[in-house]
Amino acid sequence: MREIESLRSVLGDRLSTDAAEIDAFARDSSRAQPEGMPVALVHAETTADVSAALAWADAGGVPVSVRGAGTGLSGGAVGYPGGLVISLARMNRIVEIDAGNRLATVEAGVITADLDAAAGEHGLFFPPDPASAKWSTIGGNIAVNAGGLRCVSHGVTTDSVAGLEVVLADGRVMHTGSRTRKNVTGYDLTSLFTGSEGTLGVITAATVRLKPIPPGEPRTFRASFDDIGDAGAAVTAVVASENTPEVLELMDALSVEIIESFQPSGIPVPGAAILVGQTVGRDAQEKAEKILEIVRAHRGGDLEISASDSLLEARRLANPALTAQGLRVSCDVGVPVTELAAIFRGIDEIARQHGRRISTVAHAGDGNLHPTVEADDTPEEHRAAEAAIDDITRLALSLGGTVTGEHGVGSVKKHELSWQLDAATLDVQAAIKRALDPRGILTPGRGI
Amino acid sequence: MREIESLRSVLGDRLSTDAAEIDAFARDSSRAQPEGMPVALVHAETTADVSAALAWADAGGVPVSVRGAGTGLSGGAVGYPGGLVISLARMNRIVEIDAGNRLATVEAGVITADLDAAAGEHGLFFPPDPASAKWSTIGGNIAVNAGGLRCVSHGVTTDSVAGLEVVLADGRVMHTGSRTRKNVTGYDLTSLFTGSEGTLGVITAATVRLKPIPPGEPRTFRASFDDIGDAGAAVTAVVASENTPEVLELMDALSVEIIESFQPSGIPVPGAAILVGQTVGRDAQEKAEKILEIVRAHRGGDLEISASDSLLEARRLANPALTAQGLRVSCDVGVPVTELAAIFRGIDEIARQHGRRISTVAHAGDGNLHPTVEADDTPEEHRAAEAAIDDITRLALSLGGTVTGEHGVGSVKKHELSWQLDAATLDVQAAIKRALDPRGILTPGRGI
Repeated sequence: MREIESLRSVLGDRLSTDAAEIDAFARDSSRAQPEGMPVALVHAETTADVSAALAWADAGGVPVSVRGAGTGLSGGAVGYPGGLVISLARMNRIVEIDAGNRLATVEAGVITADLDAAAGEHGLFFPPDPASAKWSTIGGNIAVNAGGLRCVSHGVTTDSVAGLEVVLADGRVMHTGSRTRKNVTGYDLTSLFTGSEGTLGVITAATVRLKPIPPGEPRTFRASFDDIGDAGAAVTAVVASENTPEVLELMDALSVEIIESFQPSGIPVPGAAILVGQTVGRDAQEKAEKILEIVRAHRGGDLEISASDSLLEARRLANPALTAQGLRVSCDVGVPVTELAAIFRGIDEIARQHGRRISTVAHAGDGNLHPTVEADDTPEEHRAAEAAIDDITRLALSLGGTVTGEHGVGSVKKHELSWQLDAATLDVQAAIKRALDPRGILTPGRGI
Repeated sequence: MREIESLRSVLGDRLSTDAAEIDAFARDSSRAQPEGMPVALVHAETTADVSAALAWADAGGVPVSVRGAGTGLSGGAVGYPGGLVISLARMNRIVEIDAGNRLATVEAGVITADLDAAAGEHGLFFPPDPASAKWSTIGGNIAVNAGGLRCVSHGVTTDSVAGLEVVLADGRVMHTGSRTRKNVTGYDLTSLFTGSEGTLGVITAATVRLKPIPPGEPRTFRASFDDIGDAGAAVTAVVASENTPEVLELMDALSVEIIESFQPSGIPVPGAAILVGQTVGRDAQEKAEKILEIVRAHRGGDLEISASDSLLEARRLANPALTAQGLRVSCDVGVPVTELAAIFRGIDEIARQHGRRISTVAHAGDGNLHPTVEADDTPEEHRAAEAAIDDITRLALSLGGTVTGEHGVGSVKKHELSWQLDAATLDVQAAIKRALDPRGILTPGRGI
């Protein structure tokens, strides 16, 4: 094929047309499946490679999917029939840790945990901590504005991004943001590209903000609730108090039961839910004690403070444990924290209506929930489970929430977008998309 | 004039064509002057008023300036010849304080300090604290993504904005963002409109994030430096340490001298600069002590920790004190904190070259500086002072900085934009502007 040869002449063996290899890079970790195979895969090693690939795709109107580590949960990186896949996995250099300015500059393919470890050598850390941090790339995290456990204290990924290198649809390279904490020169394009899920440009490098590792020893705390209403009220009271926890998670009884059967860690199965959290800083112990005072006032029991973080380790086991038990179709909704009890109760009702077990773990401190619906591993069962998820999503919206807190829209939630966004917003998004990607080659049909 | 009458039929006496009143609302607090007078002024009382005004202006291609309290320092709210002024000052309702979710919903014309006071009744505070907070409006703060003293700890305005109500150029109303801490549904339009300086839409209301007031008593600390290199190194070391201050300001010797002569508060005039800061939290005293240990290691003297904040009050007097002494042309540049000493030294050299006194106060913790150049109050003198400011701005950029940290571009810094932004970025900004405001009526020719 003549056209692909023109790209090969630039990229050499960084361009692959091997079907098996393309197939592997045309999938992510979501339930979305490619509708046909891409024609080629670029193993980009430099920004210039990405630039050449996009210029080629733009000229030919070839749809492009962009892939970091393929850990995405919304189908954003799934390949297009006849399309081009750009893999950024080889662009994995940590370019600079600037400890004095608490900044790191990294290529998009750097594994997020590797960035955090490199920062740690300077007494600093990278705040965003998606559960996938050991496998996912910083570029992917930025593309979906990923969340994680520490968001209740440090915000989401966008709050830690200072600037980006982006390749535009036509192959031009631009730089957004600044190395200064304050910068109001022009539009905040850094935030626009963060979370744009590959639809406006390809993020090839980022300058991110680091924070000093807090002094003292972290404390993990735990409480059990027999009533979900009490648990929700306790979370609301804790986050509105002066005792900001670093992490504040809720797991319903079914989640705890399944995690304990997967790998026992001695967590008592609660009547309704268990609250697990962490405090940091010189006053970590005092903060944890004050949080548990609030929790006790809301009828929390089994109170425990510990210097070990085995409880949080157990929380991180939720996904594999649930999958092993046949709870495999998950979602990612958000509600205001005051509505946590309402959505937990509503999810129980939806589980009854659909006749399926649903377990829920929540980043409770920021009202972000991951209900997971039981389903056999067949397309029909998945569809049936997704109907329950649509009901959960509508419930979240009726409570003032969001259809996606941290996983992104991709293709999986695309049909839910208009449930949340008004017509003017959808129009504005489409207008921005057209303005930046007039031929519509960048992750078309997804994200907005 | 028939066209204006059609708008008056909708707005009644909320539309003014009184020349003196229009003149008053056609100016802001910058050195920019209107080039001619607008034809009408809208005292918007509702979002519908703004919508009607914009639909009218869009249909007629009438340029629109938007005004909160007129405290802007970059000329963004200055009226256009033949244009329409929309004042949001009457849209000053605090719609809701949602303490449970730590959110406030306010109309754009609410004075920022009033919002903070209302939050205080719930044990919460609104983190952004521009020096103008007692007079400026939250809408104006959001439109320029204002900064302030507490940014070193809490980030800038955009970090506290959860969602916006925006009226688009054609009068349609849209809502961005979410009441949830995490929300990745579609593009981050909240951040795009924040700091867009009225060029993409008119912000009529906002939902903002509040934080719990920290426990314990704040501590103010102070140190003097004989060498600016030591001061810069001390700031770098403090912000990279685990002892995050709430506020961290530097004032050069000339600033201190002028402030002390304006209203004596007993601050010793330093050899080179004085560092003033504040710590909060249960460990405020311990944090302040540890910060001063770092400062001492960098040859800071006159160390003092106090429970009074008279030092910060003195800092807030900088602007009136400087103006009274004929230092009246100020600017707003940013550098990475590691470059603080370099820019202070460079500013001294620029002062010598231009034969003018320049005093500098800095939000040192985030590398944001406000040098102010001496000038008589004549156009010629202002132009001469601006030449010195252009030199300072070029120096900031050469050190990896920004042409504006917190005041915005407006018209005053428009000529400096291309010094910082690459051609692709300027193109992308223009493309977004065209996409959202095809007739170019919204604050045309400014901001980007």
